[in-house]
Order: sequence, then C-alpha cells, then structure tokens
Amino acid sequence: MEKGRLEAFTDGVIAVIITIMVLELKPPHEASWDALLANWPVFLGYVLSFIYVGIYWNNHHHLLFTVQKINGRVMWANLHWLFWASLVPFTTAWMGENHFEALPTAIYGVVLMMTGGAYLILQQCIIAKGGDDSELARAIGKDFKGKISLVGYVLGILLAFVNPWFSDALYALVAMLWLIPDRRIEKVVSE
Amino acid sequence: MEKGRLEAFTDGVIAVIITIMVLELKPPHEASWDALLANWPVFLGYVLSFIYVGIYWNNHHHLLFTVQKINGRVMWANLHWLFWASLVPFTTAWMGENHFEALPTAIYGVVLMMTGGAYLILQQCIIAKGGDDSELARAIGKDFKGKISLVGYVLGILLAFVNPWFSDALYALVAMLWLIPDRRIEKVVSE
Amino acid sequence: MEKGRLEAFTDGVIAVIITIMVLELKPPHEASWDALLANWPVFLGYVLSFIYVGIYWNNHHHLLFTVQKINGRVMWANLHWLFWASLVPFTTAWMGENHFEALPTAIYGVVLMMTGGAYLILQQCIIAKGGDDSELARAIGKDFKGKISLVGYVLGILLAFVNPWFSDALYALVAMLWLIPDRRIEKVVSE
Amino acid sequence: MEKGRLEAFTDGVIAVIITIMVLELKPPHEASWDALLANWPVFLGYVLSFIYVGIYWNNHHHLLFTVQKINGRVMWANLHWLFWASLVPFTTAWMGENHFEALPTAIYGVVLMMTGGAYLILQQCIIAKGGDDSELARAIGKDFKGKISLVGYVLGILLAFVNPWFSDALYALVAMLWLIPDRRIEKVVSE
Repeated sequence: MEKGRLEAFTDGVIAVIITIMVLELKPPHEASWDALLANWPVFLGYVLSFIYVGIYWNNHHHLLFTVQKINGRVMWANLHWLFWASLVPFTTAWMGENHFEALPTAIYGVVLMMTGGAYLILQQCIIAKGGDDSELARAIGKDFKGKISLVGYVLGILLAFVNPWFSDALYALVAMLWLIPDRRIEKVVSE
Repeated sequence: MEKGRLEAFTDGVIAVIITIMVLELKPPHEASWDALLANWPVFLGYVLSFIYVGIYWNNHHHLLFTVQKINGRVMWANLHWLFWASLVPFTTAWMGENHFEALPTAIYGVVLMMTGGAYLILQQCIIAKGGDDSELARAIGKDFKGKISLVGYVLGILLAFVNPWFSDALYALVAMLWLIPDRRIEKVVSE
Repeated sequence: MEKGRLEAFTDGVIAVIITIMVLELKPPHEASWDALLANWPVFLGYVLSFIYVGIYWNNHHHLLFTVQKINGRVMWANLHWLFWASLVPFTTAWMGENHFEALPTAIYGVVLMMTGGAYLILQQCIIAKGGDDSELARAIGKDFKGKISLVGYVLGILLAFVNPWFSDALYALVAMLWLIPDRRIEKVVSE
Repeated sequence: MEKGRLEAFTDGVIAVIITIMVLELKPPHEASWDALLANWPVFLGYVLSFIYVGIYWNNHHHLLFTVQKINGRVMWANLHWLFWASLVPFTTAWMGENHFEALPTAIYGVVLMMTGGAYLILQQCIIAKGGDDSELARAIGKDFKGKISLVGYVLGILLAFVNPWFSDALYALVAMLWLIPDRRIEKVVSE
C-alpha cells in the first residue's frame, strides 16, 4: 500500500481538528474590549492546542518520510491516533469555557496522554514493519522525548487537582520540548 | 480518468464526516464529572461511527488500489455512497442525544444499510469495468462479508423495536467483522 | 503553474460546502417520527444541492483533465466560481427551513445562476488559454447544456413568485440534464 | 523534506477557514427581504475576507512554486502564518455582527496585519534557505507590495477609531493591490 493516501487523509482530519477548535472561538455579541477579553481562556486554550496539533502534524510528516509502503496495522494505528487527537477540540473548549478549572484541565491532560500514547504505538507499528535496523528505528532510538512527554502528562493530570495552573505550565513545557523540531530523523536520513 | 482526484475528494468528504460527528460532542457548561458523563451516549455513538468511517476509508483505499482508471459510472457510484455516508453524523447524533431509543437506533441502522448497499454498488461498478477476471473480482469473490453485513443491519433495524441494545450489539458485531482488515485484496495482489 | 494544487484546493472547498449543508440537518430533540419528518424540506434541499455539488465536482474534474498548466486568470476564475458555490449551503438551508417559500426559492435560483455563470467564465478562461482548436474547445462546442441551464435558472427565479414548486421542479430538471455525464470531453480525448 | 504535504495541509486549513466564515452566514428564520438584507454586513465581511484568503492562497501557490525542498523552519513559519489566518473568520464575524463598529474593525486590521507579517516571515525563511540569488529572492525583490500592505493595515487600525469606514476602504484598497496577480515570480521563472 502506498503512503500517499494515508498522508492526505491525516492532513484532512488535522485540518478538521483545527476547524473545530476555531469554531469554539465564538465572536462576542458586543463590540467592546470587555466582550473580547472575556474570550481569553478559550483563546489561550486554542493557542496551546494549535501548537500541539502543529507539533503532531510536523512529526507525522517526519515519521512517514522514511517509509515507502504501509500495511493494515499502520493504517489502523494511524486511525487510532487520529481518534484521540479528534477529542482535543472537545477538551480544549471545555477547559477554556470553564476557565481552566481542575477537572477539565485533568481531562485535557488525559486526552493529550492518550494521543501521545497512540502516537508511540503508531511509531512502533512502523518500526516493526521496517525492522530495528531501519532508518526510522535508528533515528527514534530510545525515544526519550516521547516517554518523558507521557510522564509530563501524567504529572499534569495529578497536579490539576492541586492547582490547574501547574498542569497548564507542564503541558506548555512539554510542547516547548517538541517545538525544537525532531531533527533526529532528518539527521539519520541525510547521513 | 485518473483515480487520484476521486481519492482526494473522498478523503476530504470523509474528513468532513468526522468533523460533523465531533461537533456533536458539545463541551458541557459545568466543570463536573456529572456534566461530562452526561455526554456518554453521544460519545459511545461517536466511537461506533468513527470505527465505521475508519473501516470504510480503509476498504475504499483497498478497493481503489487495484484500479488504474475510472469512468463516469464509478464517479457517480462513489458520490452516491458518500451521500449515504454523509448522513451517518446526523443519525449518530440523533441516536446519542436520545440515549439509544428505538426509532433513532433503527434509523441509524437504515443509514448503515444504505451506506453498505451503496458501497456494494460502487464495488460492482468497478468490477464491471475491470471484468470478472480482474484482480479485484477474484479478491472480492462472493463477498460474503458484504452480504452478511447487510443482513446484520436489517436484523438490527427490526430488533430496535424489541430492544435497541440488541441492535447496537449487532451494529458493533458487524464492525468487528470488518475490523479484521480486508486481506483478500492484499493477498491476490501480492500473488 | 501546475494544475494539481488548484484541483486539491477545489476538492477541499467542495468537501467544505458539503459539510455546511449537512450541518443544517439538525438532529431533532425527540425520538419520534414526527420530529424526524419535520426535517423533510431541509433533507429535500440537501439532496438537490448534493446532486448539484456532485455535478460540478464531476464536470470540474473533466474540465481540468485536458489542461496541463494554468495561469493567474484561471486561478481567479476558479476562486470566483467557488465563491458563488460557497453560498449554496446558505440558500439551501434558508429554502429548507422556510419550506420552499417564494423568496428563498428565488434566491436559491439566483445563487445557482451565478454559480453556473461563474463556471462558464472559468471554462472560457481555460479555453482562451488553450486556443479555439484545443481539445477542450472542441469538446465543449457551443455548450448548449451550459446555456440552457442558465435559462432554466432564470425561469425558476421568476416562477418562484407564481409557485415555488414550479421553480424546484425546474431546478431538479436542470440537474437531471447534467446527471447524464459530460461525455463530450471523454469522447474528444479518446479520439 | 518534500513540499507536497505542506501544500496539501495548507490547502486543507485554508478550505477550513472558508468553512468557518461561511458558517457565520446564518440563514434567517423568516422568508422575507428584510430578514435576508439584515445579513448584509456579515455578507460584506465575508466577501472581503474571501478575497483576502483567495489572495493568500494564490500567493502561497506562487511562493512555493520555485521551492523544491523545505526544512523545519519553513514548516513552522507556515504554521505560524496559518495560525493568524485561522483568526480571520473570528474577526470577520465579530465585525459583521456588530455592523463594522470601531473596535471590531480595528481588531480585524490587527489580524490582517499579523497574518501579513507572518507571511513576510515565511517568505524570508524560504529565501534564507535558497539564498539571495535564488529565483524567489530576485522575484520578490524589495517586496514593496508586502511592506505597503502592512502600512495600510496599521493606518486602518488607527483610523477605525476615527471612522471605521475609512479602515474598511483601506482594507479593500490593499486587497485590490494584491488582486493584480503577483506576476513577479511568474516573470522570473519564465525567463
């Protein structure tokens, strides 16, 4: 199976995820600063989730770069990952509308964690197909970043019930970690 | 005619179908477990429909894999199938919001049945173009799975008026049947 | 300029147009036949508009098939056509929600007419680039179907104020005219 | 990295931006001219923003035409630009619903300015990769149009508090400036 259509479908679903997040930014009915600024928690949530979605799209791009052909397992692992990612707008909106309260902040972390875990599974399925000696396997290595992110999410979920802002800081920190583009794959490929 | 654009358009519409389903997952106004869990029937419906849409996308990918060129009939058969598939979010939402009551559950089955039937027609149009001896014709064979699914949907529709949970179990069962990837085409191609 | 991205963008916008139309099919709050059937005018409008959008997508596919490279004029003519097409969901919903009353039915016709006119302009821009002797120019010929459709829309707009059902019958009739796939281009190409 | 997927993703997000703008055109509940015409400011805003989005899509098409491969910087610069562009529907709707009052008109200009600035950054990242001698660098030159547009947006933001119609006229004027297709790149390429 060619990878082209998997990429196209993934791009479509990710564009859709962004749509739904933007739809939650509802234009206020009044033309005042107060009405505009009342939206700030939803906006902040949008910024954070946009960065996460951007990171995933970026990494997915890299992930599939070294692959030529995919199989049914990879397709389903990809759909599984997209399923969790499709819940991000729901939790973003819930967190924003409730001004980063404890429970929505924790559930936001749960969805980030499940999306991250599903991405690791997808990565494993692709490596399993290519062999431990494949470019991708060498590029990913022990995947320190992927594993530390999961730890970050779990901590974030727990801390939400202490102070949700700790969680949000942690979620932002994990995003920062990934904003540094995943040069591992680029490096191995260019060698 | 090239198949590339048919694939791209289909991917776009399927991404759209997922959007509309996710939009029905409306973030609750309160930040409580009660408010979150009140959404469970809509969420359950989303999971089931996401799996169905994923199966169709997967199978469509396989279906077009063996084809090089398509004609006007195939394009319209594809649009006809997408039409029925585009009604899935509507029935999913109706079923979820009404907590799997009899009528919405039956109508959900009707749309699954029409989508399944339209897919069989699409398959036939592609086989008709390629000939009974084509790779696809041999791969599909008597299409036991396609036909048994239709039987499952009809039973589901009828059982909805006895107990809608029987129907939902049946719809889930049919999905399970397809989750096993359609290796028939892969097998014939790799021979 | 390559045509690939124009096609991809057009497919994306058309998928979006379908989304917006399906979103107007709002799941009723009650689980009764009455609640479901109260949706019939919106559903009927959806069917008609889905067919129109399908026809345009199909014809656009044919239209660009003979073209290799496009210029800025073609890109803007394409955007102009997409602009009018993007208004179809708005008028479909308005017509459906008001049970095919005179004014919404007439405005629906106006948008169909403008979309049809914009499509003729797009066709002319492509022919102008390729020359009167191009495959496309020969295939389109005098474009009887394109012109008769515009007449149909104008009549439909006027008749809406007599009896909107005359208009709807006329809009459906024009759609039927186009459902017969546009074999002209296929024929010339295969010669 | 290949540019194909960046283009596909960008096209998807731009199609999504159009969706959200069209969704703000809400079909009125009554079938009267009054109800239809009450929508005019939202419609006018839609026309203006559609033209802006069209211009960006067109220019993005040209911008990437001369590029063969992209790097991580370009991908993030592109995402950054898409982020600001994704806010256009929000400000369009806010401006339209409040009948072009001062604050929403100014904020509309702020988002146009940020989108324009992000586009300049994207352009710089691409040029930085290709070198000052690249086709693109020669084609863009001093980018008079890009810089004058930013001046136009800033003036529009300030004038909104004097008379918002001055701002809207200015935004429309800047759009006109770009409607003349960006032949610079075409010219250099064809040499």
